[in-house]
Amino acid sequence: MPLAFSQTTQSAARVVASAADAPAAAPFADRLAAVVAARESQVVLGLDPDPARLWPQAVRAAPADGPPAERAARAVAAHCRALIDAAGPACAAAKPQLACFERLGAPGWAALAEVVEHARAAGLLVIADAKRGDIAVSAAAYGQALVGATPTPFGDAPGLGVDAFTASPYLGVDTLDVLLGAARAARAGMFVLVRTSNPGAADLEDLELAEGGPLWARVAAIVDALGAGAPQASEAGFSGPGAPGHSACGLHDVGAVVGATAPEHVARMRELMPRTVFLLPGIGAQGGRVEDLAPAFAPHRAAGLVTASRSIATAHEQRPDATPEAAARAEVERLRAAAWALA
Amino acid sequence: MPLAFSQTTQSAARVVASAADAPAAAPFADRLAAVVAARESQVVLGLDPDPARLWPQAVRAAPADGPPAERAARAVAAHCRALIDAAGPACAAAKPQLACFERLGAPGWAALAEVVEHARAAGLLVIADAKRGDIAVSAAAYGQALVGATPTPFGDAPGLGVDAFTASPYLGVDTLDVLLGAARAARAGMFVLVRTSNPGAADLEDLELAEGGPLWARVAAIVDALGAGAPQASEAGFSGPGAPGHSACGLHDVGAVVGATAPEHVARMRELMPRTVFLLPGIGAQGGRVEDLAPAFAPHRAAGLVTASRSIATAHEQRPDATPEAAARAEVERLRAAAWALA
Repeated sequence: MPLAFSQTTQSAARVVASAADAPAAAPFADRLAAVVAARESQVVLGLDPDPARLWPQAVRAAPADGPPAERAARAVAAHCRALIDAAGPACAAAKPQLACFERLGAPGWAALAEVVEHARAAGLLVIADAKRGDIAVSAAAYGQALVGATPTPFGDAPGLGVDAFTASPYLGVDTLDVLLGAARAARAGMFVLVRTSNPGAADLEDLELAEGGPLWARVAAIVDALGAGAPQASEAGFSGPGAPGHSACGLHDVGAVVGATAPEHVARMRELMPRTVFLLPGIGAQGGRVEDLAPAFAPHRAAGLVTASRSIATAHEQRPDATPEAAARAEVERLRAAAWALA
Repeated sequence: MPLAFSQTTQSAARVVASAADAPAAAPFADRLAAVVAARESQVVLGLDPDPARLWPQAVRAAPADGPPAERAARAVAAHCRALIDAAGPACAAAKPQLACFERLGAPGWAALAEVVEHARAAGLLVIADAKRGDIAVSAAAYGQALVGATPTPFGDAPGLGVDAFTASPYLGVDTLDVLLGAARAARAGMFVLVRTSNPGAADLEDLELAEGGPLWARVAAIVDALGAGAPQASEAGFSGPGAPGHSACGLHDVGAVVGATAPEHVARMRELMPRTVFLLPGIGAQGGRVEDLAPAFAPHRAAGLVTASRSIATAHEQRPDATPEAAARAEVERLRAAAWALA
């Protein structure tokens, strides 16, 4: 590892610069590039809270009574806030897994909204890991839920207000187009599943097509085209680098989820998607190694984002001498430094 | 149309028999077969509430003040309850579209839970239209959210408790397996997207594979195998038709979403999935015609489910003389009779 300076000193320096420093109206890719540069980090903090495995102080912070879902949701929110406070300064973004909040029902969604707000206040971009995909009219509703607002007879109901979200491509380009339209209206980003980190990725994503190449390569071409098809400033009635989808840093607002567990594909994906931000899950608990991902980072420091969740949140289980906060901080800093050294 | 008797009389007769009459422990397919037979209906009532297009009395039922999302969620719940009361007696199931509730945040999820409960109390099975798909650990969380419960330090937090849900296959069999395990533990069903009703279905679902046939046919084979792989009664430690996944009616607990907008594929899908329940969206607003779907119903009355939402909820917009309730009732009865005449 080439970094010789103190982890603590460096983390403290990074905490002052944050996504909040980039203008809110800048496109997602530019806001991402700014926070990656300021924090010298491509790490995305996964927030996958399991109510049965929360940090002890978060469990103690729950109300003394009430329905289990309500108490657990309060504990989940406290856990995520503490994790963001401990590990966030070494990260560029936070990625809440929506399933983990949905399972606590309405109180879980209230906790999700609170966690999104806390992460943004901590200077992190927020990527909602939703993997949504539906026909146009429903995709529009998901867009309202994630990055937009819903007109009602009582006024607009705001959505989560995240900076980006993940989406599933199975239903085709028309459904992705609707989600992307919602994202661009909010200057947000969208990460499309291309090749995921699970063993089952072989079942459909790797299927060889009659036209040649695997299914994931076709999806990669769609992702590249959607990103390249960002409206030009003049067409959209905007001008300059703040126009929707048109970034100053050169990266697209349509990213790709590319599992870190199959690094042999990463170089080929980079050829197919030269200006796409790769979201790279599968490091740590799923077996992927950050050292294998160099092609992801080749075009730009912000072109590869390394996500980790359980390996950070449960780091203290391997280190009985450390508090959850200290263990999480050490683990995220290790990952940050390893990724930054590659880029 | 061969039915000569009064719609009103028949609806009133059907309302007494309902899903509630089948034992709760029966597998999904048997509960479905029971309610289809009792109500002489294969219609699934889609619940896709748009807060800007609710029935007037539902808007009036909202609280006089509070945040827009809270007021809109109360109006959405009132709208869905009224729609269930009006159209539900001619239906076998209700299908809430989760996007439409999520966009109202935590109050929207509270409304969703209330609507699920109301539909079940009205004798309908409930199919959550979620189209979820995620890696194993997150798929397990979605399973808890939809059909299971989440262990917490404060006791179990119950999920939505629906009878079935829709799922996306892109990530592969391991992720579907986890969702199916959750469904079977609750004696619920799962409907996998095979070929959807939107124009973009051509982009990936119709792609020709090197092995021959389109991608959707491979997904159909997976759906058939997952359904056929239901544990036998002896293996699972149960006996009789109540064993998980093992139905008395012969239909599988793994269904398929098959768009009614491409009826030319339905016969081939039935060959590939002879014991699979087809959920057939796309009738009405999306242009599909129920008369084109006969092969879906061939193996069993309950083997084809026709979904409609906007065409029922907005029927009064074409009939200024009718109340929303009366227009919805007439439209759903028209669809019910047309489908039943085919089966």
